[in-house]
Amino acid sequence: MITLHHLEYSRSTRIIWLLEELGVEYEMVRHQRHPETMRAQADLAAIHPLAKAPTAIIDGNLMMESGAIIEYILEQYGEGKLAPAPGSNDRAEFLEWLHFAEGTLANPVIVQMLAPRFGGLGEGYAPFVEGEVVKLLDYVEHHLDNREYIVGDSFSGADINIMYVIELAMAAGMLANRPACADYGKRMMARDGYRKAIELGGPVVPSLGG
Amino acid sequence: MITLHHLEYSRSTRIIWLLEELGVEYEMVRHQRHPETMRAQADLAAIHPLAKAPTAIIDGNLMMESGAIIEYILEQYGEGKLAPAPGSNDRAEFLEWLHFAEGTLANPVIVQMLAPRFGGLGEGYAPFVEGEVVKLLDYVEHHLDNREYIVGDSFSGADINIMYVIELAMAAGMLANRPACADYGKRMMARDGYRKAIELGGPVVPSLGG
Repeated sequence: MITLHHLEYSRSTRIIWLLEELGVEYEMVRHQRHPETMRAQADLAAIHPLAKAPTAIIDGNLMMESGAIIEYILEQYGEGKLAPAPGSNDRAEFLEWLHFAEGTLANPVIVQMLAPRFGGLGEGYAPFVEGEVVKLLDYVEHHLDNREYIVGDSFSGADINIMYVIELAMAAGMLANRPACADYGKRMMARDGYRKAIELGGPVVPSLGG
Repeated sequence: MITLHHLEYSRSTRIIWLLEELGVEYEMVRHQRHPETMRAQADLAAIHPLAKAPTAIIDGNLMMESGAIIEYILEQYGEGKLAPAPGSNDRAEFLEWLHFAEGTLANPVIVQMLAPRFGGLGEGYAPFVEGEVVKLLDYVEHHLDNREYIVGDSFSGADINIMYVIELAMAAGMLANRPACADYGKRMMARDGYRKAIELGGPVVPSLGG
Protein backbone atom coordinates (compact mmCIF):
# COMPACT_ATOMS: atom_id res chain seq x y z
CA MET A 1 0.00 0.00 0.00
CA ILE A 2 1.58 3.26 -1.17
CA THR A 3 0.34 6.77 -0.40
CA LEU A 4 2.27 9.49 -2.20
CA HIS A 5 2.04 13.03 -0.87
CA HIS A 6 2.58 15.04 -4.02
CA LEU A 7 3.58 18.69 -3.82
CA GLU A 8 3.08 20.68 -7.02
CA TYR A 9 6.27 21.68 -8.89
CA SER A 10 8.49 19.36 -6.90
CA ARG A 11 10.63 16.28 -6.68
CA SER A 12 7.58 14.16 -5.88
CA THR A 13 6.83 14.01 -9.61
CA ARG A 14 9.71 11.54 -9.68
CA ILE A 15 7.73 9.07 -7.60
CA ILE A 16 4.59 9.38 -9.73
CA TRP A 17 6.80 8.66 -12.74
CA LEU A 18 8.40 5.63 -11.06
CA LEU A 19 5.05 4.17 -10.02
CA GLU A 20 3.59 4.72 -13.48
CA GLU A 21 6.61 3.00 -15.08
CA LEU A 22 6.15 0.03 -12.74
CA GLY A 23 2.37 -0.04 -13.09
CA VAL A 24 2.01 -0.21 -9.31
CA GLU A 25 -1.20 1.04 -7.68
CA TYR A 26 -0.98 3.96 -5.28
CA GLU A 27 -3.02 6.70 -3.71
CA MET A 28 -2.02 10.31 -4.36
CA VAL A 29 -2.68 13.18 -1.96
CA ARG A 30 -2.14 16.60 -3.51
CA HIS A 31 -0.47 19.55 -1.78
CA GLN A 32 -0.06 23.10 -3.06
CA ARG A 33 2.75 25.55 -2.43
CA HIS A 34 2.15 28.87 -0.71
CA PRO A 35 1.44 31.25 -3.62
CA GLU A 36 3.91 33.89 -2.40
CA THR A 37 6.71 32.02 -0.59
CA MET A 38 6.42 28.99 -2.92
CA ARG A 39 7.14 26.78 0.10
CA ALA A 40 5.14 23.77 1.26
CA GLN A 41 2.41 24.53 3.77
CA ALA A 42 0.82 23.17 6.96
CA ASP A 43 -1.04 20.33 5.22
CA LEU A 44 2.25 18.69 4.23
CA ALA A 45 3.91 19.52 7.56
CA ALA A 46 1.03 17.66 9.21
CA ILE A 47 2.24 14.49 7.46
CA HIS A 48 5.99 14.99 8.08
CA PRO A 49 7.53 17.81 10.16
CA LEU A 50 10.07 18.71 7.45
CA ALA A 51 7.28 19.07 4.83
CA LYS A 52 9.59 17.78 2.10
CA ALA A 53 8.51 16.50 -1.29
CA PRO A 54 8.36 13.65 -1.91
CA THR A 55 6.86 12.34 1.30
CA ALA A 56 5.35 8.87 1.01
CA ILE A 57 3.84 6.23 3.25
CA ILE A 58 4.87 2.81 1.96
CA ASP A 59 3.59 -0.27 3.75
CA GLY A 60 3.31 1.83 6.91
CA ASN A 61 6.78 3.44 6.58
CA LEU A 62 6.70 7.24 6.51
CA MET A 63 9.51 8.18 4.13
CA MET A 64 11.19 11.17 2.56
CA GLU A 65 14.28 11.52 0.28
CA SER A 66 13.72 10.75 -3.41
CA GLY A 67 16.65 8.33 -3.68
CA ALA A 68 15.58 6.34 -0.62
CA ILE A 69 11.96 6.14 -1.79
CA ILE A 70 13.05 5.04 -5.27
CA GLU A 71 15.29 2.31 -3.83
CA TYR A 72 12.66 1.12 -1.38
CA ILE A 73 9.85 0.99 -3.93
CA LEU A 74 12.10 -0.88 -6.37
CA GLU A 75 13.05 -3.40 -3.68
CA GLN A 76 9.48 -3.98 -2.52
CA TYR A 77 7.49 -3.54 -5.74
CA GLY A 78 9.99 -3.55 -8.62
CA GLU A 79 10.11 -7.29 -9.30
CA GLY A 80 13.62 -6.80 -10.67
CA LYS A 81 12.68 -3.95 -12.98
CA LEU A 82 14.38 -0.52 -13.26
CA ALA A 83 17.41 -1.41 -11.12
CA PRO A 84 20.40 -3.73 -11.62
CA ALA A 85 20.28 -6.41 -8.91
CA PRO A 86 22.90 -6.45 -6.14
CA GLY A 87 25.94 -8.30 -7.45
CA SER A 88 25.20 -7.53 -11.11
CA ASN A 89 27.47 -5.62 -13.49
CA ASP A 90 25.82 -2.21 -13.46
CA ARG A 91 25.02 -2.15 -9.73
CA ALA A 92 27.90 0.14 -8.64
CA GLU A 93 27.15 2.65 -11.39
CA PHE A 94 23.43 2.56 -10.59
CA LEU A 95 24.01 3.36 -6.91
CA GLU A 96 26.48 6.07 -7.79
CA TRP A 97 24.19 7.94 -10.21
CA LEU A 98 21.20 7.47 -7.95
CA HIS A 99 23.05 9.17 -5.08
CA PHE A 100 24.83 11.68 -7.34
CA ALA A 101 21.53 13.29 -8.39
CA GLU A 102 20.79 14.72 -4.95
CA GLY A 103 24.13 14.22 -3.20
CA THR A 104 26.17 16.31 -5.63
CA LEU A 105 24.29 17.71 -8.65
CA ALA A 106 20.95 19.07 -7.41
CA ASN A 107 22.07 21.69 -4.94
CA PRO A 108 24.35 23.86 -7.08
CA VAL A 109 21.95 23.67 -10.05
CA ILE A 110 18.94 24.69 -7.95
CA VAL A 111 20.79 27.36 -5.96
CA GLN A 112 22.15 28.87 -9.19
CA MET A 113 18.65 28.82 -10.69
CA LEU A 114 17.06 30.46 -7.64
CA ALA A 115 19.90 32.94 -7.02
CA PRO A 116 18.00 35.91 -8.53
CA ARG A 117 15.05 35.17 -6.25
CA PHE A 118 17.41 35.44 -3.25
CA GLY A 119 18.87 38.71 -4.53
CA GLY A 120 22.18 37.02 -5.32
CA LEU A 121 24.50 34.71 -3.38
CA GLY A 122 27.30 36.98 -2.29
CA GLU A 123 30.50 37.92 -4.11
CA GLY A 124 32.49 34.88 -3.05
CA TYR A 125 29.83 32.19 -3.05
CA ALA A 126 28.11 33.05 -6.36
CA PRO A 127 31.18 32.29 -8.55
CA PHE A 128 31.84 29.13 -6.52
CA VAL A 129 28.32 27.83 -7.22
CA GLU A 130 28.55 28.82 -10.88
CA GLY A 131 31.86 26.97 -11.17
CA GLU A 132 30.33 23.85 -9.63
CA VAL A 133 27.36 23.96 -12.03
CA VAL A 134 29.66 24.20 -15.05
CA LYS A 135 31.96 21.43 -13.83
CA LEU A 136 29.14 19.06 -12.89
CA LEU A 137 26.95 19.59 -15.97
CA ASP A 138 30.00 19.24 -18.21
CA TYR A 139 30.72 15.94 -16.48
CA VAL A 140 27.16 14.72 -17.06
CA GLU A 141 27.32 15.94 -20.68
CA HIS A 142 30.49 13.93 -21.24
CA HIS A 143 28.95 10.87 -19.58
CA LEU A 144 25.78 11.05 -21.71
CA ASP A 145 27.62 11.43 -25.01
CA ASN A 146 26.59 8.39 -27.08
CA ARG A 147 24.53 6.96 -24.23
CA GLU A 148 20.82 6.29 -24.18
CA TYR A 149 20.42 6.04 -20.39
CA ILE A 150 22.39 7.29 -17.40
CA VAL A 151 23.35 3.73 -16.35
CA GLY A 152 24.11 0.75 -18.60
CA ASP A 153 21.81 0.16 -21.56
CA SER A 154 18.38 0.33 -19.97
CA PHE A 155 16.07 2.76 -18.21
CA SER A 156 16.33 2.75 -14.41
CA GLY A 157 15.40 4.58 -11.23
CA ALA A 158 18.68 6.51 -11.59
CA ASP A 159 17.30 8.13 -14.77
CA ILE A 160 14.23 9.24 -12.82
CA ASN A 161 16.33 10.67 -9.99
CA ILE A 162 18.68 12.66 -12.21
CA MET A 163 16.00 13.80 -14.65
CA TYR A 164 14.42 16.20 -12.15
CA VAL A 165 17.72 18.09 -12.06
CA ILE A 166 18.26 17.83 -15.82
CA GLU A 167 14.78 19.24 -16.39
CA LEU A 168 15.44 22.20 -14.08
CA ALA A 169 18.76 22.81 -15.83
CA MET A 170 16.97 22.66 -19.19
CA ALA A 171 14.30 25.13 -18.05
CA ALA A 172 16.98 27.48 -16.72
CA GLY A 173 18.81 27.50 -20.04
CA MET A 174 21.82 25.63 -18.68
CA LEU A 175 21.72 22.97 -21.43
CA ALA A 176 21.91 25.37 -24.40
CA ASN A 177 25.46 24.21 -25.20
CA ARG A 178 25.11 20.71 -23.81
CA PRO A 179 23.40 18.74 -26.58
CA ALA A 180 23.84 15.27 -25.04
CA CYS A 181 22.08 16.37 -21.83
CA ALA A 182 19.37 18.18 -23.80
CA ASP A 183 18.72 15.20 -26.09
CA TYR A 184 18.67 12.84 -23.12
CA GLY A 185 16.17 15.10 -21.37
CA LYS A 186 13.89 15.16 -24.40
CA ARG A 187 14.10 11.36 -24.76
CA MET A 188 13.18 10.82 -21.12
CA MET A 189 10.33 13.34 -21.33
CA ALA A 190 8.91 11.47 -24.32
CA ARG A 191 8.40 8.29 -22.26
CA ASP A 192 4.82 7.28 -21.53
CA GLY A 193 5.55 7.08 -17.80
CA TYR A 194 6.93 10.61 -17.69
CA ARG A 195 4.02 12.02 -19.69
CA LYS A 196 1.53 10.29 -17.44
CA ALA A 197 3.34 11.73 -14.38
CA ILE A 198 3.05 15.27 -15.75
CA GLU A 199 -0.58 14.69 -16.68
CA LEU A 200 -1.34 13.54 -13.12
CA GLY A 201 1.02 15.75 -11.13
CA GLY A 202 1.34 18.88 -13.24
CA PRO A 203 4.55 20.38 -14.65
CA VAL A 204 7.83 20.10 -12.74
CA VAL A 205 8.84 23.70 -13.38
CA PRO A 206 6.18 26.40 -12.87
CA SER A 207 7.83 29.34 -14.57
CA LEU A 208 11.32 30.71 -14.35
CA GLY A 209 10.15 34.28 -14.83
CA GLY A 210 11.17 34.52 -18.52
CA MET B 1 39.78 -5.64 -4.02
CA ILE B 2 39.19 -2.12 -2.68
CA THR B 3 41.38 0.91 -3.26
CA LEU B 4 40.27 3.97 -1.33
CA HIS B 5 41.51 7.35 -2.45
CA HIS B 6 41.55 9.27 0.79
CA LEU B 7 41.63 13.05 0.79
CA GLU B 8 42.65 14.67 4.09
CA TYR B 9 39.85 16.44 6.03
CA SER B 10 37.09 14.93 3.93
CA ARG B 11 34.16 12.59 3.57
CA SER B 12 36.49 9.75 2.63
CA THR B 13 37.15 9.20 6.36
CA ARG B 14 33.67 7.63 6.31
CA ILE B 15 34.90 4.82 4.09
CA ILE B 16 37.99 4.12 6.22
CA TRP B 17 35.62 3.89 9.20
CA LEU B 18 33.25 1.54 7.38
CA LEU B 19 36.06 -0.75 6.24
CA GLU B 20 37.59 -0.83 9.72
CA GLU B 21 34.19 -1.69 11.26
CA LEU B 22 33.81 -4.53 8.75
CA GLY B 23 37.41 -5.67 9.06
CA VAL B 24 37.74 -5.77 5.29
CA GLU B 25 41.16 -5.39 3.69
CA TYR B 26 41.81 -2.40 1.45
CA GLU B 27 44.54 -0.29 0.01
CA MET B 28 44.60 3.41 0.85
CA VAL B 29 46.07 6.10 -1.40
CA ARG B 30 46.52 9.46 0.34
CA HIS B 31 45.77 12.83 -1.24
CA GLN B 32 46.38 16.29 0.22
CA ARG B 33 44.37 19.46 -0.26
CA HIS B 34 45.90 22.56 -1.79
CA PRO B 35 47.21 24.49 1.23
CA GLU B 36 45.60 27.78 0.16
CA THR B 37 42.39 26.88 -1.73
CA MET B 38 41.81 23.78 0.45
CA ARG B 39 40.54 22.01 -2.68
CA ALA B 40 41.58 18.61 -4.02
CA GLN B 41 44.45 18.71 -6.50
CA ALA B 42 45.62 17.14 -9.75
CA ASP B 43 46.58 13.81 -8.18
CA LEU B 44 42.95 13.10 -7.25
CA ALA B 45 41.63 14.55 -10.53
CA ALA B 46 43.87 12.03 -12.29
CA ILE B 47 41.80 9.24 -10.70
CA HIS B 48 38.37 10.81 -11.27
CA PRO B 49 37.69 14.05 -13.19
CA LEU B 50 35.50 15.51 -10.42
CA ALA B 51 38.24 14.92 -7.82
CA LYS B 52 35.66 14.19 -5.12
CA ALA B 53 36.30 12.49 -1.81
CA PRO B 54 35.63 9.67 -1.34
CA THR B 55 36.72 8.18 -4.63
CA ALA B 56 37.18 4.42 -4.54
CA ILE B 57 37.89 1.57 -6.91
CA ILE B 58 35.93 -1.46 -5.79
CA ASP B 59 36.32 -4.69 -7.74
CA GLY B 60 37.17 -2.59 -10.79
CA ASN B 61 34.31 -0.10 -10.35
CA LEU B 62 35.47 3.52 -10.10
CA MET B 63 33.02 5.09 -7.65
CA MET B 64 32.24 8.36 -5.91
CA GLU B 65 29.36 9.45 -3.60
CA SER B 66 29.66 8.36 0.04
CA GLY B 67 26.17 6.85 0.21
CA ALA B 68 26.65 4.79 -2.95
CA ILE B 69 30.05 3.52 -1.83
CA ILE B 70 28.67 2.59 1.60
CA GLU B 71 25.75 0.70 0.03
CA TYR B 72 27.97 -1.05 -2.49
CA ILE B 73 30.60 -2.11 0.04
CA LEU B 74 27.89 -3.40 2.39
CA GLU B 75 26.28 -5.40 -0.44
CA GLN B 76 29.56 -6.89 -1.64
CA TYR B 77 31.56 -7.22 1.58
CA GLY B 78 29.13 -6.68 4.48
CA GLU B 79 27.95 -10.26 4.96
CA GLY B 80 24.71 -8.86 6.38
CA LYS B 81 26.42 -6.53 8.84
CA LEU B 82 25.76 -2.77 9.30
CA ALA B 83 22.60 -2.65 7.13
CA PRO B 84 19.09 -4.05 7.55
CA ALA B 85 18.46 -6.51 4.71
CA PRO B 86 15.94 -5.68 1.96
CA GLY B 87 12.50 -6.65 3.20
CA SER B 88 13.40 -6.30 6.89
CA ASN B 89 11.75 -3.94 9.38
CA ASP B 90 14.29 -1.13 9.49
CA ARG B 91 15.11 -1.11 5.79
CA ALA B 92 13.00 1.95 4.84
CA GLU B 93 14.42 4.00 7.69
CA PHE B 94 17.98 2.89 6.87
CA LEU B 95 17.68 3.99 3.25
CA GLU B 96 16.05 7.27 4.27
CA TRP B 97 18.76 8.28 6.77
CA LEU B 98 21.52 7.08 4.46
CA HIS B 99 20.24 9.39 1.69
CA PHE B 100 19.23 12.19 4.09
CA ALA B 101 22.84 12.74 5.21
CA GLU B 102 23.99 14.06 1.82
CA GLY B 103 20.65 14.64 0.07
CA THR B 104 19.28 17.10 2.63
CA LEU B 105 21.47 17.73 5.69
CA ALA B 106 25.05 18.16 4.51
CA ASN B 107 24.72 21.11 2.17
CA PRO B 108 23.15 23.73 4.46
CA VAL B 109 25.38 22.72 7.38
CA ILE B 110 28.57 22.94 5.31
CA VAL B 111 27.57 26.12 3.47
CA GLN B 112 26.67 27.79 6.79
CA MET B 113 29.99 26.67 8.24
CA LEU B 114 32.00 27.94 5.28
CA ALA B 115 30.00 31.16 4.81
CA PRO B 116 32.65 33.39 6.47
CA ARG B 117 35.28 31.95 4.14
CA PHE B 118 33.12 33.04 1.16
CA GLY B 119 32.65 36.52 2.64
CA GLY B 120 28.97 35.80 3.34
CA LEU B 121 26.12 34.35 1.29
CA GLY B 122 24.05 37.36 0.34
CA GLU B 123 21.27 39.09 2.25
CA GLY B 124 18.50 36.80 1.05
CA TYR B 125 20.30 33.46 0.89
CA ALA B 126 22.16 33.63 4.23
CA PRO B 127 19.00 33.66 6.39
CA PHE B 128 17.47 30.93 4.21
CA VAL B 129 20.47 28.64 4.81
CA GLU B 130 20.51 29.47 8.51
CA GLY B 131 16.81 28.63 8.75
CA GLU B 132 17.41 25.29 7.05
CA VAL B 133 20.27 24.42 9.41
CA VAL B 134 18.12 25.14 12.47
CA LYS B 135 15.14 23.22 11.13
CA LEU B 136 17.17 20.19 10.05
CA LEU B 137 19.40 19.92 13.12
CA ASP B 138 16.35 20.34 15.37
CA TYR B 139 14.73 17.47 13.47
CA VAL B 140 17.80 15.25 13.97
CA GLU B 141 17.96 16.29 17.64
CA HIS B 142 14.34 15.24 18.13
CA HIS B 143 14.97 11.96 16.30
CA LEU B 144 18.04 11.12 18.42
CA ASP B 145 16.36 11.84 21.75
CA ASN B 146 16.49 8.51 23.64
CA ARG B 147 18.07 6.71 20.71
CA GLU B 148 21.43 5.00 20.61
CA TYR B 149 21.77 4.85 16.80
CA ILE B 150 20.27 6.77 13.90
CA VAL B 151 18.33 3.69 12.67
CA GLY B 152 16.73 0.95 14.77
CA ASP B 153 18.75 -0.44 17.67
CA SER B 154 22.10 -1.15 16.06
CA PHE B 155 25.02 0.61 14.43
CA SER B 156 24.80 0.85 10.62
CA GLY B 157 26.22 2.51 7.53
CA ALA B 158 23.64 5.26 8.04
CA ASP B 159 25.40 6.28 11.27
CA ILE B 160 28.67 6.56 9.36
CA ASN B 161 27.10 8.67 6.63
CA ILE B 162 25.37 11.14 8.96
CA MET B 163 28.25 11.34 11.45
CA TYR B 164 30.46 13.31 9.05
CA VAL B 165 27.84 16.06 9.08
CA ILE B 166 27.22 15.79 12.84
CA GLU B 167 30.94 16.11 13.43
CA LEU B 168 31.18 19.25 11.29
CA ALA B 169 28.16 20.69 13.11
CA MET B 170 29.80 19.87 16.43
CA ALA B 171 33.07 21.53 15.42
CA ALA B 172 31.18 24.61 14.20
CA GLY B 173 29.41 24.98 17.55
CA MET B 174 25.99 24.11 16.11
CA LEU B 175 25.32 21.41 18.72
CA ALA B 176 25.80 23.60 21.81
CA ASN B 177 22.06 23.44 22.56
CA ARG B 178 21.41 20.06 20.99
CA PRO B 179 22.48 17.54 23.66
CA ALA B 180 21.08 14.44 21.94
CA CYS B 181 23.11 15.17 18.78
CA ALA B 182 26.20 16.03 20.83
CA ASP B 183 25.96 12.87 22.95
CA TYR B 184 25.34 10.75 19.86
CA GLY B 185 28.40 12.29 18.21
CA LYS B 186 30.59 11.56 21.21
CA ARG B 187 29.30 7.95 21.40
CA MET B 188 30.05 7.36 17.74
CA MET B 189 33.50 8.95 18.04
CA ALA B 190 34.31 6.60 20.93
CA ARG B 191 33.91 3.53 18.70
CA ASP B 192 37.06 1.57 17.89
CA GLY B 193 36.31 1.78 14.17
CA TYR B 194 36.02 5.57 14.25
CA ARG B 195 39.19 5.98 16.29
CA LYS B 196 41.10 3.73 13.93
CA ALA B 197 39.79 5.77 10.97
CA ILE B 198 41.06 9.02 12.52
CA GLU B 199 44.37 7.38 13.38
CA LEU B 200 44.82 6.25 9.79
CA GLY B 201 43.19 9.14 7.91
CA GLY B 202 43.75 12.12 10.17
CA PRO B 203 41.10 14.40 11.69
CA VAL B 204 37.89 15.15 9.79
CA VAL B 205 37.92 18.86 10.63
CA PRO B 206 41.24 20.69 10.24
CA SER B 207 40.50 23.91 12.08
CA LEU B 208 37.55 26.24 11.94
CA GLY B 209 39.68 29.29 12.54
CA GLY B 210 38.80 29.64 16.23
